[in-house]
Amino acid sequence: MLPQALQNVIEVLGLLPGVGARTAERYAYYLFKANPRISDNIAEALAALHSGVKSCPVTFALIDADEEVPPLYSDPSRDRTTILVVEEPLDIYAIEQTHGYKGTYHVLGGAISPIDGVTADELHISELVKRVAEDNVTEIIIATNPSVEGESTALLLEKILREKYSDLKITRLARGLPLGVDLSYADQITLSAALENRTEL
Amino acid sequence: MLPQALQNVIEVLGLLPGVGARTAERYAYYLFKANPRISDNIAEALAALHSGVKSCPVTFALIDADEEVPPLYSDPSRDRTTILVVEEPLDIYAIEQTHGYKGTYHVLGGAISPIDGVTADELHISELVKRVAEDNVTEIIIATNPSVEGESTALLLEKILREKYSDLKITRLARGLPLGVDLSYADQITLSAALENRTEL
Repeated sequence: MLPQALQNVIEVLGLLPGVGARTAERYAYYLFKANPRISDNIAEALAALHSGVKSCPVTFALIDADEEVPPLYSDPSRDRTTILVVEEPLDIYAIEQTHGYKGTYHVLGGAISPIDGVTADELHISELVKRVAEDNVTEIIIATNPSVEGESTALLLEKILREKYSDLKITRLARGLPLGVDLSYADQITLSAALENRTEL
Repeated sequence: MLPQALQNVIEVLGLLPGVGARTAERYAYYLFKANPRISDNIAEALAALHSGVKSCPVTFALIDADEEVPPLYSDPSRDRTTILVVEEPLDIYAIEQTHGYKGTYHVLGGAISPIDGVTADELHISELVKRVAEDNVTEIIIATNPSVEGESTALLLEKILREKYSDLKITRLARGLPLGVDLSYADQITLSAALENRTEL
């Protein structure tokens, strides 16, 4: 009953994560009513996405397809002896926005998850182990997500790294109260961690 | 810091209604990780959107660009003497899914909204007035949204139609409790309407 072209748009937008039929309809109708330049721009950007982006062979961060290694690694101001390990490439972006980290990064490409069928072999762990030796790394900061999968991955990483490099400093991001959250709303585990890792004033 | 091609996608997806930077990032990264066919399909569907859809000259419903008038109007099984008036084309879709209406539709193209600068002149009201005479319409069902704008539009429509056609039956969709909503959660106005329009068992 809807025009085919509109129905097509609703259908494909419904493939986006968390977008149901109603939201896809809203997006599609908005795009139809809006300046055609907007849908054209989205179409062009999407068509160029996969050809324009690749994985860095060293850090597995996402980089422009015509780059060799990302500035985050090649820039001489970045300290290669410290590696911050994240699950996904976009996590790098979040850390960089703090402007408080000057080391390099390593993207695992996910976290161990038996349910989703992600095993340790699929993560870029062996490449990380190699980088520790090659770049004379002195500290590994594990910044996996505070989820069951992230925690398991962190434990495994620590075990693997510790076996090969007994002197390596291995740290994790602090657990504690997030800013702006009322104490009474914090969950027990976060609160326990905040208490245990309390800092002296 | 993100690859340009990815940043472009995040930027343009952020133009969708209700999509902030975080959601646009999530969509973009999902599309990058997913099969390239998905982003290609979305790109193709969007590129074909505006050329494939037009407004019906009679009902202002959205129709395929190569159609003359929509089956919703041309189909002989549709009763042209009843017109259901909606604000937006997608509202037709919602009504059709009830499978309980066999008349035709008329899309106003919005509702009167002084704040958004939408005046009565911009709505397809004069075309509706003309259709009433041309199709010997006996009933107009006003199905504008239950918002301030929708209510004002309904009142104005009733006034305009009543002036020209004193015998015309003009009805509105019933106000009452939506299914599945607890009585105690219903707002006062809805509850008042449900009480006033109570039906006998």
